[in-house]
Amino acid sequence: MGRLSEGAILRRILDRLAPSRAEVGPGDDAAVIAVDGGPVVATVDTLVHGPDFRLAWSSGYDLGWKAAAVNLADVAAMGARPVALLVALAMPDDTRVSFVEAVADGLRAACEALAPGCAVEGGDLTVSDTLTIAVTALGALETAPVRRSGARPGDVVALAGAAGEAARGLGLLFARFRDPEGTPVAVDDVLLSPSERDAIAAQLRPHPPIALGPAAARAGVTALMDVSDGLLLDATRMADASGVTLALERAPLGPDVDTALTGGEDHALLATFPPGTPPEGFRAIGVVRERGNEAVLVDGVPYAGRTGWDPYRDWDSARG
Amino acid sequence: MGRLSEGAILRRILDRLAPSRAEVGPGDDAAVIAVDGGPVVATVDTLVHGPDFRLAWSSGYDLGWKAAAVNLADVAAMGARPVALLVALAMPDDTRVSFVEAVADGLRAACEALAPGCAVEGGDLTVSDTLTIAVTALGALETAPVRRSGARPGDVVALAGAAGEAARGLGLLFARFRDPEGTPVAVDDVLLSPSERDAIAAQLRPHPPIALGPAAARAGVTALMDVSDGLLLDATRMADASGVTLALERAPLGPDVDTALTGGEDHALLATFPPGTPPEGFRAIGVVRERGNEAVLVDGVPYAGRTGWDPYRDWDSARG
Repeated sequence: MGRLSEGAILRRILDRLAPSRAEVGPGDDAAVIAVDGGPVVATVDTLVHGPDFRLAWSSGYDLGWKAAAVNLADVAAMGARPVALLVALAMPDDTRVSFVEAVADGLRAACEALAPGCAVEGGDLTVSDTLTIAVTALGALETAPVRRSGARPGDVVALAGAAGEAARGLGLLFARFRDPEGTPVAVDDVLLSPSERDAIAAQLRPHPPIALGPAAARAGVTALMDVSDGLLLDATRMADASGVTLALERAPLGPDVDTALTGGEDHALLATFPPGTPPEGFRAIGVVRERGNEAVLVDGVPYAGRTGWDPYRDWDSARG
Repeated sequence: MGRLSEGAILRRILDRLAPSRAEVGPGDDAAVIAVDGGPVVATVDTLVHGPDFRLAWSSGYDLGWKAAAVNLADVAAMGARPVALLVALAMPDDTRVSFVEAVADGLRAACEALAPGCAVEGGDLTVSDTLTIAVTALGALETAPVRRSGARPGDVVALAGAAGEAARGLGLLFARFRDPEGTPVAVDDVLLSPSERDAIAAQLRPHPPIALGPAAARAGVTALMDVSDGLLLDATRMADASGVTLALERAPLGPDVDTALTGGEDHALLATFPPGTPPEGFRAIGVVRERGNEAVLVDGVPYAGRTGWDPYRDWDSARG
């Protein structure tokens, strides 16, 4: 399985499942399901100790925060407002109750900070050798759900939220907080500059701009998704889904353009809007063109480097 | 954490979370969440390799089936009709794609057999050292949600579905299909009587009576829950939530009353109805009385034995 991409595996699985009856089925940031009375946005994402987080680096609070944030972002990426989380926590039998309480504190704090009105409404606890948290987020729509397939030539490409900060933080953790064998060790803030602390905080406790998802929908956004695997890779997915080329510019992406283009896990919102100034909170980073040979261009040319981060291909869980 | 019950841990966690805004929050079989337009029933349950299933005994198909069935039962236990599943699958990097396809086949088959109209509408794949499947089920209500707290003195206690079959099957697996070190080995059907095969099938691929959940709600059921941890333990929970005593009878519970009373994982539906004959598919197993000293009586006396199965207390994951 390690040789297939997550997308390839998903296609194999989807072939086996019954045809989706949902308004939006598998393949977007979240599903939109018709429940008597109205559409419900629903998504699930799992964090696993090893590939997704390390307890040497993440506290229980950090883990709860991040598990909430990444799922809230998938709801926002449909233009929806998160209304509830369900949390499935599987943990070793010797886990301290205080750790579980800290996870709960992080879940609550992320909801209050990022999506006021959303709370944990259900859950499940099980024993597992591998600490795992699967969060389901449910959301409500004031508008039609926003797909990633609606970008049209002439639209402005815009971004809300950080680009590259979380990846920079992960790089610092790998470079500076591992022992000689590669095993993660606790972060010592004294060894970090303020900017480095911010980057590590962005990795451990990301702040995706949740409220800007429904705001973009109200403002007429044509396509929307959250950037989890890197701007270039996710922009390629949006371009392919929409049948267009996204022509990005380096200038608005800050001083470290390569990290901004390839770094994942910020859960920024990538959007396309009709021509004009994008709504408050979004910054223009390019334009949508008729589909050419490339899905994504950067300053007019294909990007010469790796286009993103596929957790199945790139992460060696034995490392560190 | 191993010394605290799941209930005790949940109470500690719930104290840390924001007050529920849901119509039905944590503490029942599923949450009922108001999404613009109407209530949505939502629940999540996780199966972990080791404590919840063994690959020597369960195929990928079995695992998909069971993961769907147990969550469909939680939706049905609110009187709701399941409409969608989200599946978070975490698996070792060397998992074969054919195994994942078999999980998908089992999920689909369980939905088609137990809850026609319900399908997998979203999901997430991650790498983990421990094979884990967390399924979220969403449901729609035609009636008010049915709590476990509505049983009233004079009501009939009724059961739909198997009682003790899944536990009998698990007992057979432990007794007959482990090597001398206690490690599970593949089931050989030739060694089993037809009745034993049925019991093992009930453990690996349970058939909870999903359609009878909404049917009970239409028929005026006063309290409803699914029996996951054993009839006595779950009846105690219903009695405590309702402030009544459930007076059960041994006679309707079949030849192996002790297994019927204490065995978990059949996901039968335990219900109370106003006096009279319970609706089709339910059999009367007792009556509701004013609350006495005991939450549950069996033929008029407290049950002299263990009252159920708490996965946190009773399962030694190192065993087998």
